Amino acid sequence: MSTEKDRVAEFTAFRHRMNERILAEDNQVVRRFFALDTQTYKAGALDVKTKEMLGLVASMVLRCDDCISYHVAQCKDVGVTREEFFEMFSVGLVVGGSIVIPHLRRAVDFLDRLEADGAASSAENCSEHA
Amino acid sequence: MSTEKDRVAEFTAFRHRMNERILAEDNQVVRRFFALDTQTYKAGALDVKTKEMLGLVASMVLRCDDCISYHVAQCKDVGVTREEFFEMFSVGLVVGGSIVIPHLRRAVDFLDRLEADGAASSAENCSEHA
Amino acid sequence: MSTEKDRVAEFTAFRHRMNERILAEDNQVVRRFFALDTQTYKAGALDVKTKEMLGLVASMVLRCDDCISYHVAQCKDVGVTREEFFEMFSVGLVVGGSIVIPHLRRAVDFLDRLEADGAASSAENCSEHA
Amino acid sequence: MSTEKDRVAEFTAFRHRMNERILAEDNQVVRRFFALDTQTYKAGALDVKTKEMLGLVASMVLRCDDCISYHVAQCKDVGVTREEFFEMFSVGLVVGGSIVIPHLRRAVDFLDRLEADGAASSAENCSEHA
Amino acid sequence: MSTEKDRVAEFTAFRHRMNERILAEDNQVVRRFFALDTQTYKAGALDVKTKEMLGLVASMVLRCDDCISYHVAQCKDVGVTREEFFEMFSVGLVVGGSIVIPHLRRAVDFLDRLEADGAASSAENCSEHA
Amino acid sequence: MSTEKDRVAEFTAFRHRMNERILAEDNQVVRRFFALDTQTYKAGALDVKTKEMLGLVASMVLRCDDCISYHVAQCKDVGVTREEFFEMFSVGLVVGGSIVIPHLRRAVDFLDRLEADGAASSAENCSEHA
Repeated sequence: MSTEKDRVAEFTAFRHRMNERILAEDNQVVRRFFALDTQTYKAGALDVKTKEMLGLVASMVLRCDDCISYHVAQCKDVGVTREEFFEMFSVGLVVGGSIVIPHLRRAVDFLDRLEADGAASSAENCSEHA
Repeated sequence: MSTEKDRVAEFTAFRHRMNERILAEDNQVVRRFFALDTQTYKAGALDVKTKEMLGLVASMVLRCDDCISYHVAQCKDVGVTREEFFEMFSVGLVVGGSIVIPHLRRAVDFLDRLEADGAASSAENCSEHA
Repeated sequence: MSTEKDRVAEFTAFRHRMNERILAEDNQVVRRFFALDTQTYKAGALDVKTKEMLGLVASMVLRCDDCISYHVAQCKDVGVTREEFFEMFSVGLVVGGSIVIPHLRRAVDFLDRLEADGAASSAENCSEHA
Repeated sequence: MSTEKDRVAEFTAFRHRMNERILAEDNQVVRRFFALDTQTYKAGALDVKTKEMLGLVASMVLRCDDCISYHVAQCKDVGVTREEFFEMFSVGLVVGGSIVIPHLRRAVDFLDRLEADGAASSAENCSEHA
Repeated sequence: MSTEKDRVAEFTAFRHRMNERILAEDNQVVRRFFALDTQTYKAGALDVKTKEMLGLVASMVLRCDDCISYHVAQCKDVGVTREEFFEMFSVGLVVGGSIVIPHLRRAVDFLDRLEADGAASSAENCSEHA
Repeated sequence: MSTEKDRVAEFTAFRHRMNERILAEDNQVVRRFFALDTQTYKAGALDVKTKEMLGLVASMVLRCDDCISYHVAQCKDVGVTREEFFEMFSVGLVVGGSIVIPHLRRAVDFLDRLEADGAASSAENCSEHA
């Protein structure tokens, strides 16, 4: 299990490092896109929890593991319960089909580990950019 | 504009007719899938409004006009406001990219027409299956 | 219903005309791709019926109406039964999810019309390239 | 053929009208996304022609007819030749597979009509947002 | 090569474990979806071999390695020959394009290992759910 | 960092080995597809650099890491500058949306390593088939 933890830490460090490298580059469109991505999930007419749930289901049907992990952690941070997670998963599964199943397995595994670690590590691991 | 209305009515009639034909067929997997699809959006740990919003954003990033129209109408029926619609659209747009824009145009056009017709016709046109 | 028939005839004529225009162009990669596409569905270790069924399910999960119509007609020509069609549709639906439903409706509608017209018109309408 | 012309004019008017409606809405993320989309294709390290060609091939493999038509018109405006168009089409076709063929047919048809109309109407029809 | 074998065993154990966790959860839609997925590939108007082949090509064009491996193993179990596998691969490649090639490489590698291990281990590794 | 280098070498060896295995197989459609894929990127009305850039952006929006790495290396070999790479990335990001970000991170990481190794190793690692 400590290997699992290392893998998450490694991935988080990679995400951090690459986001910094990308934003350090002198390309205004890319930088603005990253800023817009952050802005998208801020509270407005819809609250943060709803927006993160929308981001999670969108990531599931588009089948991107990194995006799913990111939004699972964000949802966990804002108090989404296990029952709510599985209802989101059911929407993603029915809309996207059985091709989503391998991603669902990894999403549940990631959620299990977040719950095992407690809320503290989830905040620590995932406080940054998608 | 009456041509527009005819087109919507025609599409709704087509959806009705084909759903009936499909469900009349002796294929248990297809019928169960349709039943499961309906069950997915029932209230549970998440309410109907949240689930319909998840269905809408999933449909946007997968770029299916019929599915988008269906969920826009469902969302309208359960009280989603125009501000909330546009926040959902912003999530779909940022996650899915500019390739979503043509579908966004048609979604806004469909929403405009629903608002013009009033809540009554939305219930009438779209009370059935995705 | 005669309008429906005109629409199919119009689409078939369009497909014919554009294939000819594309193949008349002096681009060897495009022409070879079209030839390869034709070769793909020839009998080999797998018979034509199996290959056309593979093409149909692939088209369903990728959600391309024109490709679906084409392979439905090809499958019909080589004797695929209505029960077999619905079993294929069930695979496409479960793998691809509810986002496939609008395409399923149009596929069943197209199949209904082919059956109404009889085998003759199916051969006439669809004997050419995807 | 005048019906064809009307359909293009209708589509262009629709795009215009809906872009205006969308941008009139008080949603900053959506408006910024549209601005970013415009900025993306401005000359920089790569010239406009190259960027429009990138946009066209991206639209082909993602199979969006509206986006393809838009970038075909833009490419035509900046001097892309028919031979160059077909080489782009060959890349889109080989990367994206035969599922791209129906979109290729419509792209070639659109290009044919642009060439028939001359450069003037291409500027007139397509000078706006994707 | 023993590392390779460990990786397959690890993946199989993970799939087993996560399927059990997912099905233990109190979410009826998700459980019904898994049941429906199993039912889909049962013999009916089409035999198991044909259905598994449909599932394999669908997985290829949607580019999901886990799903491809699963259906390759299932197809192997029901007697699909190497020539038949490559004809399926050719359909997946032509429909889905060169973007499928990296998945084709991994599919062939997986098939090679299944053939090296003999039919026994294929049954052992892959007798469960997608 | 030497582990990183091993991973690239391992992946390159795998690609080599599997391409050879696939081309050794007696399936004419698959072999012709591979030949056509190679032909697609040869100089013609468009030069090699432009074609490789088209291939890169197509790979980004379709979100295939192996294809992205391949075309990044090819682009690097024909002299694409870092500024040009980021402008391509900006097109891929805006067209394909935030779901492309994880692939962008890995693309930039791959490019960083290519630049660190110098042009020599890029030629060595990536002179073969997609």
